[in-house]
Formats: sequence, C-alpha cells, structure tokens
Amino acid sequence: MAKQISDKVINRLTLYHCILSDYLDNKREFISSGQIAQLLKIDDSQVRKDINLLNKSGKCRVGYIVKELKVSIEKTLGFAKTKKAFIIGAGNLGSALAKYDNFTDYGLNILALFDSDKKKIGKTVNNKVIFDMSKLENLVKKSGVDIAILTVPRDYAQLTANYLVKRLNFKYIWNFTPVVLDVPDDVQVWNENLMGNFLQFTYHI
Amino acid sequence: MAKQISDKVINRLTLYHCILSDYLDNKREFISSGQIAQLLKIDDSQVRKDINLLNKSGKCRVGYIVKELKVSIEKTLGFAKTKKAFIIGAGNLGSALAKYDNFTDYGLNILALFDSDKKKIGKTVNNKVIFDMSKLENLVKKSGVDIAILTVPRDYAQLTANYLVKRLNFKYIWNFTPVVLDVPDDVQVWNENLMGNFLQFTYHI
Repeated sequence: MAKQISDKVINRLTLYHCILSDYLDNKREFISSGQIAQLLKIDDSQVRKDINLLNKSGKCRVGYIVKELKVSIEKTLGFAKTKKAFIIGAGNLGSALAKYDNFTDYGLNILALFDSDKKKIGKTVNNKVIFDMSKLENLVKKSGVDIAILTVPRDYAQLTANYLVKRLNFKYIWNFTPVVLDVPDDVQVWNENLMGNFLQFTYHI
Repeated sequence: MAKQISDKVINRLTLYHCILSDYLDNKREFISSGQIAQLLKIDDSQVRKDINLLNKSGKCRVGYIVKELKVSIEKTLGFAKTKKAFIIGAGNLGSALAKYDNFTDYGLNILALFDSDKKKIGKTVNNKVIFDMSKLENLVKKSGVDIAILTVPRDYAQLTANYLVKRLNFKYIWNFTPVVLDVPDDVQVWNENLMGNFLQFTYHI
C-alpha cells in the first residue's frame, strides 16, 4: 500500500528521478544513496529514508539498480496516471512550458495552448496548436480537461481565472502569474511563486 | 533585530506582498489577516503569526495599513539589497524570465542574457541585450555578477554549469533545466523543480 508522502518528499523524489534519467542516458546501471546525496548536497540518510518509502527500491549489493529505482518512483508518484491540461496564454512562458518535453514523462499531457492574439492563433508550439480563446469552451467540453496552466499577463490573470472557473468549471489552476487569484473554495490553485523561490535561495547572500 | 525566517515563511510573505501590491493598485488602504488567509486558503492564525515576525506590521484598528505592511515585508526580505544576475540561455524560458518585470521590485536585477545562437545575439528582450556566450567572461569581470539563471537546453546544462563555475567562478545558479547539476560544494544551486511542484499539486487528484 502506498504510504502518505509529503510535499517535500515528492519534490526530492522527482529530483532523484532526474538523476536516474541521466544515469540511464549514460548507461550507468547502479547508483548509491551517497551519489544521489552528493549531487543534491543533502544527507545520505535522508535519501535512504525517502527511498524506503517506495514499494520496491531495487536495492542490491552494490547500491540501487537505476532502472528499477526509476520505475518505482514513477509508480509511487503516479506518472502513469496521465493528467491533461491546457495552457492559457501562449507568450514566452506558455511557449516555454509547451516545449518542456519532460512533462510528458511525468504524466502531464499538455493538449493545446490558447491565446487571444490573432497573430498567434493556428500556429503550433512543439506540435501543440494555439487556439483562439473563443474555442476554449467547446474544447473543454470535448476533452474533459480541468487543469489550466495560467501564463497570461498579470493584468488579465484574475479576469481569466474567473472565466475558467465560473464559466468553464476548471478545478485546478497552475498559476504562473504574479497575482494571487481569488477563486471559490472548491478550486485548487498552485502558485508558482518564482520570486518566493528566488528569495529563499538568495535570502542569506 | 531580524528573526530567523524559514523558507516557507519567505514563500508566504512574498505571496502576501503580491496581494498587497494588488490592493495598492486598487487604492485599498486596509487589509485584514482574514482577507489574506481567504485568498491563499490558509489559516488566519498562520497569517498573523507570519506578520508578527516582521519588525513593524502596520497594524491598526481596522486591520493592517496596506502600504506599511508592504514596506515592512520588503525590508524584512531585503528587497532593497539588489542582486544582479545574468540569464544564460535566451530561449523562450530565458526570455520569459527577462520580461518578468516583477523581479526588479523584489531586488533581482537581470542585467543581460547570453546565448550561442548567432541569430539572437544583439537583440534585446525587455531592454536587456542578448550577448554572445563568448562575451560572458569579460562581462562577469566588469560587473561582478555571480548569480546565473540557467535556462539552456537540457543537453547543455552540465557543460554550461561547469563553465560558469570552474572558469567564471559563479557561486549561485538558479537552475531551470531538468538536470540535477554536479557542482563543487561551495556553489549553491537552487533547482526550480517545476515537475516536482506540479506533482505536489496534482498528487491527490
């Protein structure tokens, strides 16, 4: 049975997963908790504790079997349970996220982008079409997508969120705008608080 | 005297700061902890506890004075202590970050971008010039910049990091690539682990 996994552990497990992908690319078969710990500059015992939460660790005499540990993280974090999302706002950030191929490996399937700039409509980014915002309602009904990745300019953030939530019934917003959105209680917003992250990083400089 | 402030508190304070900026834009003078709590769907007492960590809260009979609370957060988190950075990799993500005007308010001054694509060199993004990578060494010496925002493609991430750290002596890397970088112990890397963030958000869906 899956144990309860905290946000911090989820975050670390995805970083372990990045390392394992690199190891596989370089055809390295085994990895030790110490090697992972050193790359992330965290404690060896922390890595072992996290890996012990997985159902199957792939542990062997010389460390962990890279391929098995990777699959085990994927199973535990539910990478196979694909989540479909639309990107709202096809500017630089929206386009960058659409190009981020890694998302697919992690079970995030970005189906399309939406924008209101006529010059962008009909173009593609990484094989994903940019549609006019007016098409969103219809495509939401057809696809059942309820995760929106919000990358519109600051001044349109709340207005767009209102439309997504009240009119189209989106339940999850991954918010990349620097605006704290005002939404009903049954809607989950994840604020990608870039500035907060930066300040955590540089606070002690 | 400044109290020790944890990463989580720093993160929340920057979100409060976003809310306060919005309130100021809308010419609203007062805000209650309950209003902040409701927008972020967190506990009222949590907000009050965080605000109590500030040297001056701007508390008055009808709540907090928006302008004073905002300045107090800025002082506590050191927004005035400007940090200079270069963006390495002028693709979509690098360009999006260069356009993110909010950074300046928070004390992050992005001076320029660097890329090796000849078609991009000499262009500007948000008034910041894109230079050839070959100019980086000289400009680092002139400017004293030691924070790199790394937005190169995955396959160049470690190579570029090696160059930044070993040759140019960068001490801080804000890493937007999906690669866990192998750097010496005296270099700090902040992994902007987008996928980890997404999984925290969607793990329970």
